[in-house]
Order: sequence, then structure tokens, then C-alpha cells
Amino acid sequence: MQLKQIFLFALAALAGTIVTAQDIKDDFKPSSLNQPGQQYPQVNSQGYARFRIFAPKADSVRVSLGLGGRGGTVLAKGADGYFTGTTEGPMDEGFHYYHITIDGGTFNDPGTLNYYGSTRWESGIEIPAHDQDFYALKDVEHGNVVQVLFPSKSTNTARRAFVYTPPGYSKDANRRYPVLYLQHGWGEDETAWSNQGHANLIMDNLIADGKAKPFIIVMTYGITNQLRFGHMREFKIDTFQTVLTEELIPYIDAHFRTLANRENRAMAGLSMGGMETHTITLNKPEVFSRYALLSGGVYSPGELKDKSKPGLIFISCGSRENPARVQQAADSLKQAGYNAVSFVSENTAHEFLTWRRSLYQLAPLLFQNK
Amino acid sequence: MQLKQIFLFALAALAGTIVTAQDIKDDFKPSSLNQPGQQYPQVNSQGYARFRIFAPKADSVRVSLGLGGRGGTVLAKGADGYFTGTTEGPMDEGFHYYHITIDGGTFNDPGTLNYYGSTRWESGIEIPAHDQDFYALKDVEHGNVVQVLFPSKSTNTARRAFVYTPPGYSKDANRRYPVLYLQHGWGEDETAWSNQGHANLIMDNLIADGKAKPFIIVMTYGITNQLRFGHMREFKIDTFQTVLTEELIPYIDAHFRTLANRENRAMAGLSMGGMETHTITLNKPEVFSRYALLSGGVYSPGELKDKSKPGLIFISCGSRENPARVQQAADSLKQAGYNAVSFVSENTAHEFLTWRRSLYQLAPLLFQNK
Repeated sequence: MQLKQIFLFALAALAGTIVTAQDIKDDFKPSSLNQPGQQYPQVNSQGYARFRIFAPKADSVRVSLGLGGRGGTVLAKGADGYFTGTTEGPMDEGFHYYHITIDGGTFNDPGTLNYYGSTRWESGIEIPAHDQDFYALKDVEHGNVVQVLFPSKSTNTARRAFVYTPPGYSKDANRRYPVLYLQHGWGEDETAWSNQGHANLIMDNLIADGKAKPFIIVMTYGITNQLRFGHMREFKIDTFQTVLTEELIPYIDAHFRTLANRENRAMAGLSMGGMETHTITLNKPEVFSRYALLSGGVYSPGELKDKSKPGLIFISCGSRENPARVQQAADSLKQAGYNAVSFVSENTAHEFLTWRRSLYQLAPLLFQNK
Repeated sequence: MQLKQIFLFALAALAGTIVTAQDIKDDFKPSSLNQPGQQYPQVNSQGYARFRIFAPKADSVRVSLGLGGRGGTVLAKGADGYFTGTTEGPMDEGFHYYHITIDGGTFNDPGTLNYYGSTRWESGIEIPAHDQDFYALKDVEHGNVVQVLFPSKSTNTARRAFVYTPPGYSKDANRRYPVLYLQHGWGEDETAWSNQGHANLIMDNLIADGKAKPFIIVMTYGITNQLRFGHMREFKIDTFQTVLTEELIPYIDAHFRTLANRENRAMAGLSMGGMETHTITLNKPEVFSRYALLSGGVYSPGELKDKSKPGLIFISCGSRENPARVQQAADSLKQAGYNAVSFVSENTAHEFLTWRRSLYQLAPLLFQNK
């Protein structure tokens, strides 16, 4: 998928529905992603977001969410020095990145936690999803998220990865686990899947419910050279492929109790991470046996012939992206004899709720017989 | 702040620039804590910091660093829409929190990474220290920083802790390690010691140099009730003491390969974390055998008598704090027969370089004979 297409999908989704002000319910609550003690931004039960920024001597404050390419939500200044405003319609459920523009400069909302997206730490807001239970922090046994610094000779530095180890990992020193290598999207980094993706909580809940077998997830930074937005064709996979397959995988296999073979190794990625997954799995079919593209393109049967047959191909996207393409690709793969599965996240676009749901669907299918 | 004051500060800053401009070396480089690709803020070899903020329609932009209580550094607006300014003098070496004020509102510098301090995620800048090598990322074997979510019945939630496991932890499944429980200061949280403190890199380097024996460090959030600045007397230690000694320590001992006894368990903390360490070690002398207060008060021999004798008492602060008090306390303790050590960080105040250096001095003294 082209980056331009991805961007247009995002804009279309942000446009939302126009609803008149009388319909807005007065049950706003602080977003779950607010910094400790912060009352704003708030979200109501319909999915409207309300922002409040203190800048008593400013002339204009705007929020990038709400009207998409048309300028976002313009906040109105009150006599108390607070700028306040509400999105003109309900937002899609799930996580959204945003920023604010104050007198022409770009800043983050001081009320929220920050998440790395668009190559910067951005503000985040969460519109509670009707199915949010699957990524909720519950009273179950929790796995860990381990920050490792692994040596990378090819890039001449220590690189960071986060490794999810499932509940029980520390209990049985002889048990070994399959591994999923899971990549973030353009402008994000190795923090995305646990911070905004809640990959660890999704796995904890699936494992507690007996719906997925425990496995390890490894998340690292998928960019090894400078990459400018709109210049994706300049992207060379070789350097990242070297880091992943020649440096990270051997490090993980040496430092974690993995089942260190193709059959027990999967690769998945969202958006740009799906493009990386697509290319690397086709380049290195001897390394991975399960592939997943989350809003990140498709495989065709022609690409896969003459390669080691994967045990699973999972392709997903949000319903506001291009679900027909995803479903058709899975159908073609199935007709050609591949174990292909498609998933479409209802009423979501190129955003993290699509990918949280995709991981929730994917995880039970991975390493089924282990 | 009144507009008149801002105007006077602006004049003062301009005057300062005129006087000292010839003295400021033109070798500014981006701070090591900048977000990827960001050129500002910058620091020169003398420790001056230079800020640059894009806000073309703003009237005033100020940085909280530089003039301390007198209003920070006022930035001057250029025709290109950028506000630029340089601190009126060199900053102390090390890490500093700061924020910016734009037309009266408080925001973060979009150029920098954020660090949790003052109960909010703040901008951070690093003035390279002459001794920065001890916390540098080097080509040595690295330990991990493990995020755990441990169940806390007393506070009815899962709580987060970060656990540093030393290099080699995964290699020998039978080896067990001593543990240091290490607390952050007021307004900070469990991310502080690894993010701005570089505790993991300090340990990696000490262990690689053979200067410290490997041990585990556990860092968790030291606040269990609402706490307002200036109302420290309202703080009750009981709830955090329960979380630490009845919930976290048993969890760590069950999930990590610890030497689970008093002799191999230390507690240390900076600032408010030192106060917590002081109180909890005196309340529970059967739990910890090594105590360290980093800019966080002192012990007196009178407090310690009738208690289990600690194997080590470490007391430190910056030279710009109250070093005489720290040294006198250590002298009194030594005269009373305790193994007390004091450390004063030269030319630093109540800031993180004091505490990085304190950990660097403390770690080799802990668990010496293990």
C-alpha cells in the first residue's frame, strides 16, 4: 500500500459525522490516557472529545483532531484564559494521536500522555471502544515487557527492543516458547505496540482465558536509515533485514528461552511494518513460518510459489480502509491452497484499534499446536 | 507574572546578551535528549543552553530554565516566526527538567523527550558532564529493564515496577542475586531511575569494569495516596510500606532469582524516596540490611540503636545542597560504630546528576562479599 493512500484513508476517517450541538450528551469524563490528575481532554459516551487548554494571552488554539484536513477543532477562548472546544462529531472508537496549534506553533496537549507517532512524541486520546475489555488491565496474571539493548554491528550501536514474556515465563526454567516478531508503523517506534497497542495486556487476557498459547513477542525499531514521509520508495529493506535476521533473532534466541526454528517463528507488522513483513518473509522464507500484515498490504499466490509454504497467512485492516482487497487476497490465497485468514475491524480506520483487534484475532491462530 | 515584569526581564536578558555575547562559544550542538531529528534545544561546550521554538503568531515565549525563580529565559521573536534565546549563563552539568510558557500557557518544548517530574511529563535537557562516561551507552554487555505488573490487594489494582536484571541474568538458571529497592523523588515515578537516571547503564558499566557485583534493582511508584506539594506532612508511609514490603518484595522474590533475605536486600531513595527509605528501614529493620539516602535526609545513631544493625549506611547530596550535614551525619554514625559512607557530588544541586553519581558510588559498596 502506498503511504499516500494510507494518509487519505486516515483523513477520510477523521472527517466523521456532522451532528448538531443539541445532541451532545453531557456525560464527559477524562480520557483514560490523561496525565495523572488531569481533567482534560474528556470524552463522552457518544465519542465526542472535548479539549481545554490554558493559554491566557494566546489568540488561537486549535486541536488536530475532529475535522481532519480542514483544520481540526478550533477552541474558543473564555474569560478565564482557557480555550475550550468539542469535536463537531463523535470520533471513531479507540486510540488517536493528535497535537495542538497555539498561535501557529505545534505543541502537545499538556493534559495527556505522549505516544511516539509521526516521528514525534504526540498527544494521545482514547475513545472507549465497546469491546475494550479485551485489552483492559484485569486481575489476571501478567507477563512482562522487557527492554533489551542488543548489539548491532551492522549499524554500529546498541539497539533497543521490547520483549513480551508471557505469564509463567519465570516459573519453569526448562520451558521454551515460540516467538512473534511484531513491527510498528511509519513514524512510530518500538514503544508503539506496548504503549498504544497494549499488546502485553491483549496477550495476558487471551492467555488467562485459555484462548491463546503463551508465546514471546519481540518489538524493535524498524527503521535503520533516515526516512522521509512521502519518500517511501527511498526505503531500503536490506539494513533492517540484516538487523532483524542476523542480529536481533540470534540475540533473542541466546537470551530468552525460545523455540529457535522456523516453525516456531512468526513475523507481523502494521502499515509500514506490514510492508517490511511482506518483503522480509518473502526474502527469508526459511526464517519465518507465519506471516501477518495488519493494514500493510497483501500477499499474492504468485509471490509465494517456489517458497517454503507458510503455516499461516493473516491479513487484516479496518473497515474504513480497503477491506475488499484484504478479503479478496485471502480468498485467492485459500484457493491456491494456503492457510490464509482475513480480518476486518468494524468501524475503524488506519489506527490502533484496528491493530489491537487484529492482534487479538491473530494470536489464537499462531502456533496452534504448540 | 505581570507583563511589565516580562518586559523588564526581556530587557535584562538583552542587556545580558550584549555584555556576554563575546564570551559565549559558538559550538552549540543538539542536546542528547532531543527527539529524533530535532536540532533544538542545543548546548555549547561551556554549558549554555539555546532554545528555539516555532510559534509565529505568539507574543511571548519563555523557558523555565536559566534564571531560576526569576522567570527563566525569555526568547526573542525573529521575523521567521521562531523564538530563540540562550541562557544568561552556563547551566550545571547533567539533567534538567524544564517547560516553556507560550502566551501564558505551560507546554513542553516539542524538540525534546519528556520525563516525568513535578507530577507531569516535562521537557528534559542534558548538559554534558565532564564525567558522563560512567552512564554512557557503551559496547558492553547490557542488562535488561523489565516492566512487571504486580498485584496489589491493598490498593486494589495491578501496580507497575521496573526491574533491572544484570548482564548474564539469563545465562545461569541457578544463580541468585541480591536486590536493591530504589525509589524516585517527589513528582517523579517509577520511570525516573532508568529514563533520566540511567541506572541500568550505570550498572552495566560498573559490572563490565568489574567494579560492582551484579545485583537486581527494583523501581516502583512510591506514592499510594494523593500528595500535594507543600503538604508533605499529610503523607502517610503506611500504605506504600504495605505495597513495598507485603506485596512487591514477595512478588519479586517469587518471579526473579533473588537472594531473598535481609542480608541481600537494600533500600535507597532520592529526595522524597530518601524520606521513604529512612522511615521504612527504621520501621522494618528485619527486611533491609543496607540503607542509602540520596539528597533525602540523614540517619542519627539514636534512631538506629535497638534496631538490627545495617551492613551499610550511605548518605549523599550535591555540593549545592547541604553537604556539611551529610558529612557530619556520616561522621556521627561512624563514631557510633556504624559502617557509614558519605558522598558529595561536586557542583550539582538537587538534580539527577547528583543521584546518578550517588548510585555510581553506592553500587560497588553494596553486597560487597557476594
